[in-house]
Amino acid sequence: MDDHPILDSIKKPEDVAELSFEDCRKLSEELRDVIVDRVSQNGGHLASSLGVIELTIALLSEFTPPHDQIVWDVGHQAYAYKLLTGRKDQFHTLRKFGGVSGFPKQSESIYDSFGVGHSSTSVSAALGLLRAKKLKGDDGHVVAVIGDGAMTGGMAFEGLNDTGHFSENLTVILNDNQMSIDKNVGGLSRALAELRSSKEYIKVKSRVERFLLAIPLIGRPIARFIRMIKTAFRLFIRRNVPVIFEDLGFQYFGPFDGHNIALLKKKLEISKEIDGPVLIHIVTKKGKGYPLAEENPSAYHGVSAFDKEKGVVPSDKMTFTKCFSSSMVRIGQKYENVVAICAAMMTSTGLAEFRKHMKLRFFDVGIAEEHAVTMAAGMATNGFIPVVALYSTFAQRAYDQMLHDVCLQNLHVVLALDRAGIVGADGMTHQGIYDISMMISMPNVTLLSPCNYAELDRMLEWAVAEGKGLVAVRYPRGGQSDALSEIPVLDGIGPRVLREGNDVAILSLGIMADQALEAASILDEKGIHCRVIDVRCVKPLDMEAWRNLLGDITSVVTIEDGIVHAGFGKYLLSCLEDENMFLQFKHFVTLGVSDKPLVAGDRKTLLKNEHMDAESIVEEVLSMK
Amino acid sequence: MDDHPILDSIKKPEDVAELSFEDCRKLSEELRDVIVDRVSQNGGHLASSLGVIELTIALLSEFTPPHDQIVWDVGHQAYAYKLLTGRKDQFHTLRKFGGVSGFPKQSESIYDSFGVGHSSTSVSAALGLLRAKKLKGDDGHVVAVIGDGAMTGGMAFEGLNDTGHFSENLTVILNDNQMSIDKNVGGLSRALAELRSSKEYIKVKSRVERFLLAIPLIGRPIARFIRMIKTAFRLFIRRNVPVIFEDLGFQYFGPFDGHNIALLKKKLEISKEIDGPVLIHIVTKKGKGYPLAEENPSAYHGVSAFDKEKGVVPSDKMTFTKCFSSSMVRIGQKYENVVAICAAMMTSTGLAEFRKHMKLRFFDVGIAEEHAVTMAAGMATNGFIPVVALYSTFAQRAYDQMLHDVCLQNLHVVLALDRAGIVGADGMTHQGIYDISMMISMPNVTLLSPCNYAELDRMLEWAVAEGKGLVAVRYPRGGQSDALSEIPVLDGIGPRVLREGNDVAILSLGIMADQALEAASILDEKGIHCRVIDVRCVKPLDMEAWRNLLGDITSVVTIEDGIVHAGFGKYLLSCLEDENMFLQFKHFVTLGVSDKPLVAGDRKTLLKNEHMDAESIVEEVLSMK
Repeated sequence: MDDHPILDSIKKPEDVAELSFEDCRKLSEELRDVIVDRVSQNGGHLASSLGVIELTIALLSEFTPPHDQIVWDVGHQAYAYKLLTGRKDQFHTLRKFGGVSGFPKQSESIYDSFGVGHSSTSVSAALGLLRAKKLKGDDGHVVAVIGDGAMTGGMAFEGLNDTGHFSENLTVILNDNQMSIDKNVGGLSRALAELRSSKEYIKVKSRVERFLLAIPLIGRPIARFIRMIKTAFRLFIRRNVPVIFEDLGFQYFGPFDGHNIALLKKKLEISKEIDGPVLIHIVTKKGKGYPLAEENPSAYHGVSAFDKEKGVVPSDKMTFTKCFSSSMVRIGQKYENVVAICAAMMTSTGLAEFRKHMKLRFFDVGIAEEHAVTMAAGMATNGFIPVVALYSTFAQRAYDQMLHDVCLQNLHVVLALDRAGIVGADGMTHQGIYDISMMISMPNVTLLSPCNYAELDRMLEWAVAEGKGLVAVRYPRGGQSDALSEIPVLDGIGPRVLREGNDVAILSLGIMADQALEAASILDEKGIHCRVIDVRCVKPLDMEAWRNLLGDITSVVTIEDGIVHAGFGKYLLSCLEDENMFLQFKHFVTLGVSDKPLVAGDRKTLLKNEHMDAESIVEEVLSMK
Repeated sequence: MDDHPILDSIKKPEDVAELSFEDCRKLSEELRDVIVDRVSQNGGHLASSLGVIELTIALLSEFTPPHDQIVWDVGHQAYAYKLLTGRKDQFHTLRKFGGVSGFPKQSESIYDSFGVGHSSTSVSAALGLLRAKKLKGDDGHVVAVIGDGAMTGGMAFEGLNDTGHFSENLTVILNDNQMSIDKNVGGLSRALAELRSSKEYIKVKSRVERFLLAIPLIGRPIARFIRMIKTAFRLFIRRNVPVIFEDLGFQYFGPFDGHNIALLKKKLEISKEIDGPVLIHIVTKKGKGYPLAEENPSAYHGVSAFDKEKGVVPSDKMTFTKCFSSSMVRIGQKYENVVAICAAMMTSTGLAEFRKHMKLRFFDVGIAEEHAVTMAAGMATNGFIPVVALYSTFAQRAYDQMLHDVCLQNLHVVLALDRAGIVGADGMTHQGIYDISMMISMPNVTLLSPCNYAELDRMLEWAVAEGKGLVAVRYPRGGQSDALSEIPVLDGIGPRVLREGNDVAILSLGIMADQALEAASILDEKGIHCRVIDVRCVKPLDMEAWRNLLGDITSVVTIEDGIVHAGFGKYLLSCLEDENMFLQFKHFVTLGVSDKPLVAGDRKTLLKNEHMDAESIVEEVLSMK
């Protein structure tokens, strides 16, 4: 498809409501074409976006943003929405530095009613939007669109519970695609599956309804009896639905085909008329319309650029995730008391291999990071060593569980924090830059940061075999550079010198060693000889080792891919201060991410922007007097 | 009651199982006597503990800890359990420094299978314990006891969802006392209430059952029809229970009278026989057996020492909470776009008054801190200024919601953090010492700490009227001292001098001013003249003001009631470093809470132990050379 006449005819979101059904159908094809095309070039979240194209068209036909407000849970499915609400012309910049964000973002458009990224926030946010509208006397509608995966997050339940209790006039659309990223987990998803497959239920329902309608009301006592039966059946039928939502106070409608625009429009129209909370359960197909994604939606959840015709080719490039994956198999086989836990991201965290070999010791708990960590604490209590694999950014959800359930009790739980540091195109909501500051003030924490694959493997084993309390191992998205791969593996968790020099010490955390080593090379040519030190362990600090490593040094630069204000550099500085080494330093420069939101962009761009690349280090050293 | 023969006869927990029903009844009376007696002297959580005495006896009759494991959600209801599992002789030390903890604690007893304090963790923890047992081939049972209030926490839902999906052999006891701390909130609680009160349901159920049994099966087609009706009714009846639990994969039993030991024992016995998850719904009365508490359970939730005969007398002593309470009424009346939000703690946070005057602008969302904060973000998006009142320790639950939903979007939300700092007898799990380190690395945060009531009032108004982004105002449990009350109120949020002096600057946060001023007095007598500075704002720092205040100073002591490693003192130090004021200081001592778990104890004891009292400051200053 080369041109997109219907899409091009949409000048403002309201235009969608004017389209004929035939044009809606065409529009959905055009949107699919544009999205597949763009994601195949820029990378992004493909399968989810393809799944809700009809829903997006139906929503914009029935609702009028920004007067009405639509909150997309997680938000990776909002590409069609972006295309239809004023971001068509910039869509080629999707996920680029300064471009269209991969997620709804308030600062990007008035049509993005609420910024999202992490799962299960939509009901709460939408309820807040609605309550504000109500207080203002604004009659606009608010709709939350949430997947069945996100529905397993406890926060969604909290939002539904509050909405239902106060009978707030919220419409929740449960987009049931039987998946979150991997196959879905949870009692709830089983209940939904039962319902979807319950042909028996639909058959019985219509048979009974027909039968009841046919009964004539003759004779007083018989009439009473029949009425009773009718009532009972009605109740039975009404309740033979995922009553979980009805128990929470919602009127439930569904399940409906989520790709039938006419049907969706009708149901959305009805929902507007109903006073009180409504849940519309639609069934969609992830990847709809792009056969490769339909067949294997997990592979097309979040993708890098790919060839549109050939589809995604599994890369055989090594990554930190793949290294973690094979390390976990090795370690699991060596230590029988190791168990692995993930939160609905078995494939993305690399635990699929572990599951293949040690199924009984693998637990996927659904999108439920809080539960994952406390469940791990329970297993640790009874003698196992759980390795909980989470993306750094999603671990934020389990802050209190780490602190209250693991650290205060000094239980031995290992956290594998994937995508720590700069994540690139996913942007602001997904940057793994808060883990260090989050954990540095918790008791009984060990926080490790390997600089290459071999170190990750070794540190992970150390975390399991020798660690105590909460041991977190943080590693980045992507792979190691050549420079990093050359760094030899080392036992233990102490700091070590990567390059000798006496003029300035550059202390680098994890893969930031690449920038530190490059800076040292540049400075060497200028006659400044830097000692590059691989930090390895953020906390606790081996102060004897640090005293030895820095004893003859008066100028220090630290570099880390986390928030600098409460990060490693500041922590080391304060520990040195406690040891009265404070006055020794003429310069102690801490480099890292500032506490401004960090937008999307490739690592190189962001490192430069945040004054964290090799050149920035060089600049800092040269400015020392 | 002076002696407790049955209680005294319990030498080990297993002895409970040997008691006759009559002795069980007597034991429950003795336990009530001991608990009321002790709590009236030491303070503590009374109403909840009195409500589960029969349940505790039944649990210990049917289960054998530590082989079987019982997890008490929140844990403030575990006094009877403590008395029956080896803590009888130390029970007089309840909640004292070094004494019996007010909550289950792993390090205190092998019978405390999992440490608790924050709500809604029990199902996750219990599931972890159980999965570990299963892997080890240990056939012990695991039971989670959770209140209907705690059940509104999303984490509990995540745990149930995982348990149900994998049909794990867990027993969950839903202790339905129709309250958490205040009257309960949520669609779920309404569903439970409907069930409890549904006499109609019970009547219809038995009538229909009788009727169906009476129908003779005559004639083929009629027989088929009748069978169909019977099946439909059976399904209808089975499903007319809080099917939310059945949808999640649990077998549901109840509701039962939670004060009938014989009945409870029978149901617990049955649950042991059932393979797969079981939920037993019991109805109890908070405060049971102590009439004053039965009548007004909220007043007897957490109490200070009181006269057993007269009961709790509402204190007219002013506190920071009461100050917040009246400030909120004043501010709410002045600013029509202010709304107030709490998480099931309307009375404890002091928002009851606000609700009385501005009901439409008040929202109690249940025990759901995550939802509370994101809902607030939604309201802020649409033009309101939400004040979310949480205890500092419970705000930990909403870490990601603050960061991801409020801060990254730079929405204007005010957080009122009550019980910040040292909380005293509630101990380790409730200390409000992490809020500073939690928020210091988030973007768009303003963090204020008033030193007295007048300042709290003024700062709260500043937060509403002039603040931007997430503005947190943290204030302590209890009241202001005389010394603090004399500090005059000041506009704005900048630091200010409380006492002049040129030798050393003591920088104190919030009520730590009392220690700073006392230290300054002592040092004055020794000829060392201290400048005491009231910090007021932790972040952002007005560096111009700080440069002026510290320009002539070479020795600094900072003192704050939060984790020192990532607290105000370190933050100021690092900002001074960024401004190249680093080298000016000969001494820069940061005092605060260490990153070890902080146990229960009165403020004075803990300040001394943590090296944070006036004497410690004096000592630090005297040791400067």
